[in-house]
Amino acid sequence: MTASSTIPTTRAVATAFDLTTGLTEDRASLKRPLSAMAGMYSDTAAFDAQVARDDVLSYEFYDFDVPSLETEVAYGTSITYPGKVGDEYFMTKGHFHTRLESAEIYFCLSGQGLMLMESPEGDVQVEEFRPGRSVYVPGRYAHRSVNTSSDEPLITFFAFPGDAGHDYGTIETKGFRKIVVERDGAPVLLDNPRWGN
Amino acid sequence: MTASSTIPTTRAVATAFDLTTGLTEDRASLKRPLSAMAGMYSDTAAFDAQVARDDVLSYEFYDFDVPSLETEVAYGTSITYPGKVGDEYFMTKGHFHTRLESAEIYFCLSGQGLMLMESPEGDVQVEEFRPGRSVYVPGRYAHRSVNTSSDEPLITFFAFPGDAGHDYGTIETKGFRKIVVERDGAPVLLDNPRWGN
Repeated sequence: MTASSTIPTTRAVATAFDLTTGLTEDRASLKRPLSAMAGMYSDTAAFDAQVARDDVLSYEFYDFDVPSLETEVAYGTSITYPGKVGDEYFMTKGHFHTRLESAEIYFCLSGQGLMLMESPEGDVQVEEFRPGRSVYVPGRYAHRSVNTSSDEPLITFFAFPGDAGHDYGTIETKGFRKIVVERDGAPVLLDNPRWGN
Repeated sequence: MTASSTIPTTRAVATAFDLTTGLTEDRASLKRPLSAMAGMYSDTAAFDAQVARDDVLSYEFYDFDVPSLETEVAYGTSITYPGKVGDEYFMTKGHFHTRLESAEIYFCLSGQGLMLMESPEGDVQVEEFRPGRSVYVPGRYAHRSVNTSSDEPLITFFAFPGDAGHDYGTIETKGFRKIVVERDGAPVLLDNPRWGN
């Protein structure tokens, strides 16, 4: 990622996203192959085998380098592909905001899934993604998108304060307290057996 | 509108919007019949006749009463209906932000139109809305959505800093420097003959 500017935006920016794929040709996406998720899925043997077999693209998203100012609005699309590691659904890494109090809004364009949220104190909230459904993530909550469809990408448009920043380290180190797995064809939330390790 | 809270959000909020209409049953929209636009269209005789004949709903949008804090994100959908007053396309009132520097992001869900923007110093910018196209409105620019389709609503999802606020008065008093009218079946920008009056 590039260093963020603190010079306010003065020109409008239009970006053409494809509503079917969630992608745009106007800018390179940030791609997360499954191998970038090492240590984040609970079934490590299934993870290693799957990466060795085919290190697929698990999700991608955009960063438009909006100035790091509270008066600006960072935005982009996020595309989480369908798939599972063992019985755990494909998901994004998830993050807190560096400015912890910063909220974020997501609008689901297509697909289905869950927004998994957790506060530093351990409060867990979950909301469903369906096409046309917005999910407001309150400040102080780490958030991760989970694709619970068997065949469709989960595509969302997101927006958050320009100075929010991303703290990926906490989740990379400790994980989320809950995992989302398939049981009898439907998603269920379980305690993360590896949380905090 | 209700008084804004400054207590940070602590619960996630999910809202189901209909992607075809842009509407949700989860909350009442703010409706702007054509009569609410008195003085804003250049052809006042056509305006008066049209309101007398049928005071149609010209646009509606949502306000989710997000706390008025820079760490929160105000959001909603905006639906501008197709129509014209004389040869001037249906449009929103348009506004500056009270905290003038606050930017805003729009994502077009369906329909077509223009985002008309202008700074206090008189710089004018215009961007096109098409399905899947986002338009970033820089801070300091008043902005107005214009529906240039003959038959489709222009539906956008918007997000801006929670403390931005709305200043409608400046536009209500002076108008925008440009108007968007139909000429030979296509939208063109003209100087607003009534600007500043």
